[in-house]
Amino acid sequence: MGGDGGPEPIIEGALLSLREQNDFEIILLGPAEYLENHLVSLGIDARYSSRLHIEHAPETVAMHEAPVDAVRRKKNSTIMVGFDLVRSGRADAVVSAGNSGATMASAIRKLGRLKGIARPGIASYFPTLKGPVMIMDLGANVDCRPRHLLQFAIMASSCTGKILHISRPRVGLLSIGEEAGKGNALVKEAHKLLAASPLNFIGNVEGRDVYSGNVDVIVCDGFVGNVSLKVSEGLADAAMKMLRAEIEKSILSKLGYLLLHRAFRNFRKRVDYAEYGGAPMLGINGTGIVSHGKSNATAIKNAVEVAANMVREKVNDSILETLASHPV
Amino acid sequence: MGGDGGPEPIIEGALLSLREQNDFEIILLGPAEYLENHLVSLGIDARYSSRLHIEHAPETVAMHEAPVDAVRRKKNSTIMVGFDLVRSGRADAVVSAGNSGATMASAIRKLGRLKGIARPGIASYFPTLKGPVMIMDLGANVDCRPRHLLQFAIMASSCTGKILHISRPRVGLLSIGEEAGKGNALVKEAHKLLAASPLNFIGNVEGRDVYSGNVDVIVCDGFVGNVSLKVSEGLADAAMKMLRAEIEKSILSKLGYLLLHRAFRNFRKRVDYAEYGGAPMLGINGTGIVSHGKSNATAIKNAVEVAANMVREKVNDSILETLASHPV
Repeated sequence: MGGDGGPEPIIEGALLSLREQNDFEIILLGPAEYLENHLVSLGIDARYSSRLHIEHAPETVAMHEAPVDAVRRKKNSTIMVGFDLVRSGRADAVVSAGNSGATMASAIRKLGRLKGIARPGIASYFPTLKGPVMIMDLGANVDCRPRHLLQFAIMASSCTGKILHISRPRVGLLSIGEEAGKGNALVKEAHKLLAASPLNFIGNVEGRDVYSGNVDVIVCDGFVGNVSLKVSEGLADAAMKMLRAEIEKSILSKLGYLLLHRAFRNFRKRVDYAEYGGAPMLGINGTGIVSHGKSNATAIKNAVEVAANMVREKVNDSILETLASHPV
Repeated sequence: MGGDGGPEPIIEGALLSLREQNDFEIILLGPAEYLENHLVSLGIDARYSSRLHIEHAPETVAMHEAPVDAVRRKKNSTIMVGFDLVRSGRADAVVSAGNSGATMASAIRKLGRLKGIARPGIASYFPTLKGPVMIMDLGANVDCRPRHLLQFAIMASSCTGKILHISRPRVGLLSIGEEAGKGNALVKEAHKLLAASPLNFIGNVEGRDVYSGNVDVIVCDGFVGNVSLKVSEGLADAAMKMLRAEIEKSILSKLGYLLLHRAFRNFRKRVDYAEYGGAPMLGINGTGIVSHGKSNATAIKNAVEVAANMVREKVNDSILETLASHPV
């Protein structure tokens, strides 16, 4: 119920993922009658019905609601019911395109934190010139200590290592210069902890490196991570609008744009957040994926696949193993 | 002597600015004989010679040198000699495409801080969908207190108000949500100080708003500002490379690109840092502009014009007036 576009893209995405892969089932969360009517109006194919279920959750949390309030007041929200299913073992993971703060708060309330983790956070893939890079934290923790950044690094390294099958992901610390002494007080201390960890720490990386593809994991506090994400979204939007305005100025350039249609489409696909699925919440004792509120069906399908992959690959076990060998 | 491309683009930019405006003179800083030979080889037109001077400065500071060391050891560097000229009244402003940390350190050493300013910083214009936005700080101060952010706001608001002739620049505080309660500890406290100031404070803005053009000044600590700048540069570079790779894949799209040539050129011009001149160092008792190491002649010309504008418009007097009415 949480996406900006209502339940349609989410239901469509769920159906897409069932069609593409056959080793999982999906439980839609929301007011049962409402969802049933939607499925009927979509003419849902009965072939999938044995793998598509509905769990009644009468309440929804809006984007503007304060997470802690929402969790306290709305016990029967889709998010709370979802993590209840995980707690009781009836589900393995939750995917939500709704209020990400409330999703995180619900997960912590229902499942608790992974043993040894002080601060669960949100990680996400960014497109780069080479493979994707996982950045953590993207906004769950705005005031961090050095130890939290080390834990983010351990979690994101374990996650991306398992999901992308990289044996020793290269981990970078986001700073404003490559030398160890560069950065703010938080980063300087975190650098020491990372250098002493068993991770494949390659040192500080700069803002430019986010899109270079020369690093697999970038850690930063949630304030810096969120600003970086939003600055990128804002720049991409503004650049496309400016370019379109220039193109609109002449017939020839409009024709040129038509000829470039496929190139632009491939480019957009390459940088589209929808292709990278959702953002894993790491550090909770279970699996949860936060998707963009604007998620279309493809984005939801990819988020479901990331969730399934995290469960199949036992990402949390990998995190716990690393923490056992190097408690922080 | 400081630019990545050697003295040529800097000399060319200086000549361009002399040609376009006639109410200032330029003093080139560097080894005198070396610069004289360069001017001769460029076949400098004698018309400008009465407005073009050379001041001998035998030493140069490299990009990798630690600013404090450089200032201590190289008394006769171009930067130090430049700010000496300002101190003695023989020059009104310094423009440098060299080591920005050393430029800031030299300025503070030679000129001191503006009365009432705790931390001078670096401000710069970013292109947006509408007019440019001035962002401060871009890296001079990585660990800030709320009071420093308020001072950045006062300085950047005075500067852009004078330079762009905006009577009450809209000031935003970079955060991860628009509501007053959103952000890290620094931002939450700074919000209160800004709300109680005489500035036209419009509240928190998000990373997306950097490129929206709905705000004239954005304040943040230098760590966040520098990361935002570098992330933007990295994304712009990567996006152009990805798009070019897609275009190269077919003859038709190459043809399309040819037809779009003018649109792309105009677009690039609209977002090119070179069009926005250099980054003013605000809070020093004088005028100094930091330019990108990669500055071409146009960027240098625009930086010189920003410097001349800051002197003409008495930006520092405006900052002092605001501070006098609202000491922080």
